[in-house]
This record gives sequence, structure tokens and C-alpha cells, in this order.
Amino acid sequence: MNYAMIRYIIGWILNFEAAFMSPSFVVGLIYREKSAWAIFATMLLCLVIGVPMVLLKRPKQAVFYAKDGFVSVGLSWVALSVMGALPFVISGSIPHPVDALFETVSGFTTTGSSILSDVEALPKCMLFWRSFTHWVGGMGVLVFMLTILPMSGGYHMNLMRAESPGPSVERFVPTVKSTAKILYGIYICLSLLELLLLLVGKMPMFDALTLTFGTAGTGGFGIKNDSIGSYTTYQQTVITIFMILFGVNFNVYFLFLLKKIRQGLKNEELRAYLGIILGAILLITVNIAGKFGNPFLAFHHAAFQVGSIITTTGYSTVDFNTWPTFSKTVLVLLMFIGASAGSTGGGIKVSRIVILAKSVKKELKQYLHPHSISKIKMDGKPVEHEVVRSINVFLIAYLLIYAVSILIVSLDNFDFTTTFTSVAATINNIGPGLDLVGPAANFGILSVPSKLVLIFDMLAGRLEIFPLLLLFVPDTWRKF
Amino acid sequence: MNYAMIRYIIGWILNFEAAFMSPSFVVGLIYREKSAWAIFATMLLCLVIGVPMVLLKRPKQAVFYAKDGFVSVGLSWVALSVMGALPFVISGSIPHPVDALFETVSGFTTTGSSILSDVEALPKCMLFWRSFTHWVGGMGVLVFMLTILPMSGGYHMNLMRAESPGPSVERFVPTVKSTAKILYGIYICLSLLELLLLLVGKMPMFDALTLTFGTAGTGGFGIKNDSIGSYTTYQQTVITIFMILFGVNFNVYFLFLLKKIRQGLKNEELRAYLGIILGAILLITVNIAGKFGNPFLAFHHAAFQVGSIITTTGYSTVDFNTWPTFSKTVLVLLMFIGASAGSTGGGIKVSRIVILAKSVKKELKQYLHPHSISKIKMDGKPVEHEVVRSINVFLIAYLLIYAVSILIVSLDNFDFTTTFTSVAATINNIGPGLDLVGPAANFGILSVPSKLVLIFDMLAGRLEIFPLLLLFVPDTWRKF
Repeated sequence: MNYAMIRYIIGWILNFEAAFMSPSFVVGLIYREKSAWAIFATMLLCLVIGVPMVLLKRPKQAVFYAKDGFVSVGLSWVALSVMGALPFVISGSIPHPVDALFETVSGFTTTGSSILSDVEALPKCMLFWRSFTHWVGGMGVLVFMLTILPMSGGYHMNLMRAESPGPSVERFVPTVKSTAKILYGIYICLSLLELLLLLVGKMPMFDALTLTFGTAGTGGFGIKNDSIGSYTTYQQTVITIFMILFGVNFNVYFLFLLKKIRQGLKNEELRAYLGIILGAILLITVNIAGKFGNPFLAFHHAAFQVGSIITTTGYSTVDFNTWPTFSKTVLVLLMFIGASAGSTGGGIKVSRIVILAKSVKKELKQYLHPHSISKIKMDGKPVEHEVVRSINVFLIAYLLIYAVSILIVSLDNFDFTTTFTSVAATINNIGPGLDLVGPAANFGILSVPSKLVLIFDMLAGRLEIFPLLLLFVPDTWRKF
Repeated sequence: MNYAMIRYIIGWILNFEAAFMSPSFVVGLIYREKSAWAIFATMLLCLVIGVPMVLLKRPKQAVFYAKDGFVSVGLSWVALSVMGALPFVISGSIPHPVDALFETVSGFTTTGSSILSDVEALPKCMLFWRSFTHWVGGMGVLVFMLTILPMSGGYHMNLMRAESPGPSVERFVPTVKSTAKILYGIYICLSLLELLLLLVGKMPMFDALTLTFGTAGTGGFGIKNDSIGSYTTYQQTVITIFMILFGVNFNVYFLFLLKKIRQGLKNEELRAYLGIILGAILLITVNIAGKFGNPFLAFHHAAFQVGSIITTTGYSTVDFNTWPTFSKTVLVLLMFIGASAGSTGGGIKVSRIVILAKSVKKELKQYLHPHSISKIKMDGKPVEHEVVRSINVFLIAYLLIYAVSILIVSLDNFDFTTTFTSVAATINNIGPGLDLVGPAANFGILSVPSKLVLIFDMLAGRLEIFPLLLLFVPDTWRKF
């Protein structure tokens, strides 16, 4: 293992974290909150640890395997989360360390599940930091690092692959650095556009900023106890549209930038993604129309909740836990489907689902025409055998972790739906589940072991399992 | 498609069904029940349709593809179920045709889910037929046919493969006919042994026979409203042991017959199967010990319920729906694992789970040692790539059907747990689920569309999806 390089990367991550915290510190100063100094203390601590790690003996450009990339990413996210939780603990906003870690991991992994029953009681600077973790975690901290740090050698790609969601990462342009810059460029532009539209809709600056962070990262932390329920229809609609936009594969936007509009619109994952969204909205609208009386209102809330859940954002305008079972089941299925690969959303990802569904179709075809040879295609190109295999392994690992997780959480002896959906909501980085962890409730009721399991699940979901799983394999730490 | 051969096979299936019904008819005569004549009428109808289908132009020994095997098996099971439901409808025991079909499919697929709220109200001959469908369906009707009919050509294997549970069917001996005979030989001997032990325990003959049918086929239809609750501890223990025995891969018994005891005991699936059972029993015993006060009683009921659920039998001695969530979650996970391949049980099957888990382990290993080449092994032999691939496809098809099923059942607007476990209980051929379809409840509350979906799921589960799925693909019926 390339320990020197891993130390160097984690050092930089901590330094970046200090930088990421500075806007929250400023917010604290503006609102004259004492908690701001908890943020400042954590920033100092990050630098005290981070700066020596970066300066201490520059690593030689040695071999950097996929394994090293995975371990760096896994450890970086753990370091990021632990340090990110400190302001909550130091300021006393969330006194219990496990709760603070849960909230921070939920932030960085863009899950949005909260242990807080009264969000509005938090100081503004803490609310800001909490929402800002979504924005940072959405596109990825290591991807951000790659846009800035002068790095050479072949390991960039391994880092980016390990942190970016989806079965395969395409480089738009020859260098990883430029790809990362383009990704962040699109990310920032879309975020600014949402912010602008929310401000035009007369949303206060603080609300507009934090909600934009949550939408962009597909996170879902609200700053009000009823999430997005009390905002205007215009504001809710803007958020609906941007949640869906941030769940699109960013490759599509890059094609648009290159003026390859038609090629972008032909993207199979995009079509499946929009098709699923449309179908789900229509099904739920019909199912809940009676509840709202007004079909337009039903459509509005169906669209918001569908957009929120499939993109794994997790905002809510209403308590969908009170909806009919059919609508809830549609939402639970969307939780598993998730957003597009190469977006900021979580879940299994639409492209994986499409490829998996195609493999079943191929199998049926093979039974009917035993002598034909067919290959799974995506966007007209055959999908590599290796990609199909790794998607299968991903699915299995995902299901195994799921099974173990519900087993441990079930020890809390809440009902089966709560148990089942608390794992679904965290491993897929959604936010709310059903019943006792529904949109109107929170994860505070769970025991410490359950919270630890869900912290693992949130990280496993965000990093697509293997970077995190490798940290727990003894073989990883053995010398060869 | 080899229509002539398919017609011939279905004809024989109907004639066999008439034969299978004769013991129930005799039971009806013994108890002087009017319903017996409903059985007799159905027997005649089976022969009126079946005999001409067999006699009408013997099919030439032409090509018989895997597709033909799948379609034959799929159609045979549909024919078997439709005719098997007639006695219930004609006698008025279950007047509604969909309910009668549900009950019969539940019988043949060895599911054991019932729509009846008062089983004890049924005539003895109907109870007997209901339980006997389990015994027939357990080892398979086409496998039975293969033991008797003089058939040549290469299509035996395709039929047997399509009907037998598990990822791969091994021929013990050179001919399929002998393999089928050995399988039925073991099946009959084990059944007789259980019957004997139950009779020794002073169980009435009728109860002993029907419960043996249900155990052997891993079905689960009881003849009392409290399932197995009112029997003695000895009788419950005999059933516990035999449920577990019938969930073992029959290859192991064949090895025992060949005096290869050690090789049989080394079987990896057997070890995993017994390990999971032991682990689950211990976990549940600890979890429910407080409930029963007495640890031995807790162990007894834990063992019964674990044996019943993992083998997908579905008998119960207590209402496990009232157990703590942890125990219920263990049972729900066991529902998905299922019994061994090559047994009479359903579910995903232990060997598939083992191979899937090994593929995750292999992936982790590959990350750690990128240059090593490892193959998944089972019982010391490498698992063919094709087998791994087909297990993956099976899992995906299974999950897709699962998703669509819960979506349709959720329209009934029962709670999420009921919706989720009603599908789990049927697609895995278990019997009871949780909440409104728990052991103390029944499936009668569901709507007709939901019942039809679950009928499909039971058949899909028993035939391992593809034989049934192919029937619904338009391409299957197109001429080439």
C-alpha cells in the first residue's frame, strides 16, 4: 500500500475541510453566534493535523493501485466526517458524538436523514455548515481536490473512479484535472441558477443558499421542521425542477456544452430516468388525487416527492407517510432505483437498473434463439462484460449489506416497515423513510448501534460500497 | 416450437392428475362425503381431455430445445393447477374460481398460503387433495412422469432442468429416467419414515398422512386452524426434523446411498444450510426466551419456525407475528434464502446465496491483488462462468418480478409490511407472511388482482421464473 500518498491525500482533505468551514464561520460572525467559535476551533484543528501531513516528506510518485485509490477515498471520507462533526459537539448543538457523526455523515453523503427533532433550534452557522456538507459531498471532495492540486502520475483516475457514483466514469477530456474542473463548473453554474431563481421568488438569502446546497448535492437537510412544506408553490416548483436536474448524468450536460444537443437527449439513461419520473408522478397523482381534491395540487406534490426520492434528495412538502400504500410503495421502489450515474444522487442508479433489466431480456432471448449471440448495448455501444459483472457484484454486495443492516437495526424492536425503510433511506442516501423514520419524524429514536450501522450504510451508499468495505477487510492492511 | 411433443406431455400430465386424484376420491368414499363426486367428475374430465391428447398422433422424435422444455413445464403447471382447482369449485368448498385456483397453485407450488379462514370446515377428501398437491408438487410432476413414461431423445434433461429447483441439475446416473427414479425413491422412503414416526407418536392416520405430504413437499397446508400448534411436542419435533431433512439437497442422500458418507457431509451447501439454520435458531431463541420463560420451549419453537421458514414449508406452532422485530426480521431473511438446491424447498436457494457471496469475496480479493486470477469454487470444483451468470440473471429477474408484484398488491392499500411479505411468502413458496397475512391470518382479504399476481408469483417461484416468464413473451409463440 502506498501509505505516503494516502497520508498526503488525507492531509489535503483536512486542509480543504478547514477551507470549506470558513463560510459557515463567517455566517456565525454575521449572526453574532457563539457557536461560530466551535467552527473556528475545528478549522484550526484541521490545519494543525492537515498541514504537517502534507508537508512531511513529499511522497514519491510510486505505484498507486485501484486499492490505494479505494482506501484513500474511504479514509478521506471517514476523516472528513469525524472532523466535520466536531463543531456540533463543541458548540453543544448536538452534544452526543454519535449523533453528531450521524448528522455529519448524513450531510456529506448527501443523505439528509437527521437525528434532530427541532431543526429550527440550531444556530444559523450550524444550519449553514450542515447544508454546506451536502454541497461539498455531492460532487465529491476528492474530485474537488483534483481540480486544484497539481498531481501527476496515473492515480487520479483511481481516485475519481472510487468517489464518483455510477458503474463507469468517462473522461470527457484527456486529463482528469480538466474533467474534474468541467464537472465542478457545471455544478457551480447550476447551483447559481437555482439560487438566482429562488431569490427571484423572494426567498430569504439564507434559506435560498442552504436549500440550494441541499438540492445541488441531492442531500435533503431542511432548515425548517416541515422541510419544504411552508415555502411558496413557485419556490417548491423551482426546487422540484432542480432536484431532477441534479439527478441527471452530468455527461449529458457536457454534451450540451459541446452543442451535441441531440446526442445528449438520446442518452438512454436520461430517457429511462425521465420516463420513470413521469410514470411515477402520474401513478401517484391518480392515487392521491382524492386526498388533495384538486388534481393540480396532487400533481404538484407528487412531482415534488417523486423528484425528491428518485434523486435521493429527501426534501418533502407533505408527510407522504400518510399517503395510500400504493404511493408509498412507488416511493420505496424509487428509493432503490436512485438517480443517474454521474450525477450527485445516490441509490442503485438508473443505468445499472437499465443494464440489469437488459440482461434479463437477453437471457429470455437466448432461450428463444439458442444459437444467436447477443450483447447488452447501451447508447448503441456494447457494454463490456467486465462492467456487467461488476454491476452484478455491486448488487449482491448491496443486498448482503442491506440484509445485515436490517438485522442489526431490528434489534431496536421498532416495526418492520421502520426497520426496513430506515436502511433503505440511508444506504440509498435518501433521507426520510416510512413510519417512525418518515418525513415528519427523525432518526433520533434509534439506538447507538443502529445509528452506527446506518452511518456505515450512508458511507457505503455514497462511495458505492467497495471503498468502504475494503477498510474492514484485514487483508487490506497486511504487508505483502 | 415442438407443439406435438408439448401436446403429448400435457396430455400425460392430465392423465397423471386423474391418477393423483384417486386417493382423495377414496378418502371421500371412506368418509362418505358428497364432495368425493366433485373429485370423480374432475378425474373423468382430465381423462376426457388427456387421453385423446396422448393418443392423437404420436409425436416424431424431433428437436426439443430448452425453450420447448420450459414451455412444456410452464404449460403443464398451468394445466395441472386449473384442473386441480375444479374439485373445490364443483363441490362448493371454495366457490370462487380465483380463490380455488389460488389454493391449488399454493398447493402444487408447495407454498401453503391459504385463502381459507376456517380450514377445519372443509370435507376430509378436500383436505386430503389439498395436502396431496404438496406431495406431488414437491418433487415435481414432470420428474414423476419421467420415471414412468418410456421416452427417448435428448429432451428429458431439458424437462427435468426446467422443473427442478436450483442452479444446476446433476445426473447421478447415466440416464435421466434412473435419476428421476432415484429421486422419487428417496422422496418416498423419507415420507414413509416420517409417517411411521408420526403414527408411533399416536397421531391419527389422516393427520399423519396429510402432514407428511405437507412436510415432504415443504408445502405447509395444515388441516387445523392453528396449523401445528395443537400437536404434541414429540409430533412437532418429528415435523421439525423432517422439514429440515426435506430441505437438504437430495444429491447428499444419493451420496449416502452410495456409502460416500464423508463426501456427502462435506457438501458445502449442506454445511451452509445447517449453519444458517443453527445460527438462526440460536439468535431467535435468545431473542424470544423472555417471551416463553422457559429456554427449552423457546428453543423448540425457534427451531420449528426456523425449519419451517428456511425450507419454505410454512407450518407454524405459534403466531410468530407477535415475536420481537428482530426474530421476525431473521425469519423474513430466511424466506429469501430458502432451502437447498435439489430439495423440495423454494426460495433463492442456499447454493445460489453461497455462490453470490463468494463472488463478492472474489471481487474484494481482486481489488487487493489485482494481478491474481481467482475462480469461484464450490465443493472444491470451479463454478462455470455460465452458472454464475445465470444465477445473476435469476436474481435480477427475481427482484424485478418482486418489485412489480408489490406495486400491484399495494393497490389493496394494506400496510407496507403486509404488502411486502405477502409477495415474499408466495414467490419464495413459504406460506405465511407477517401482519395481515401472518400465520394466524390468511390471504382471503386480498383483492382478485392481487391474488392473480400472487398466483403468478407462486408459479414463478416454484419453476424458478424463466419457464413461466417465457409463456408471457410474445416471441415464444411466433413461428420462425
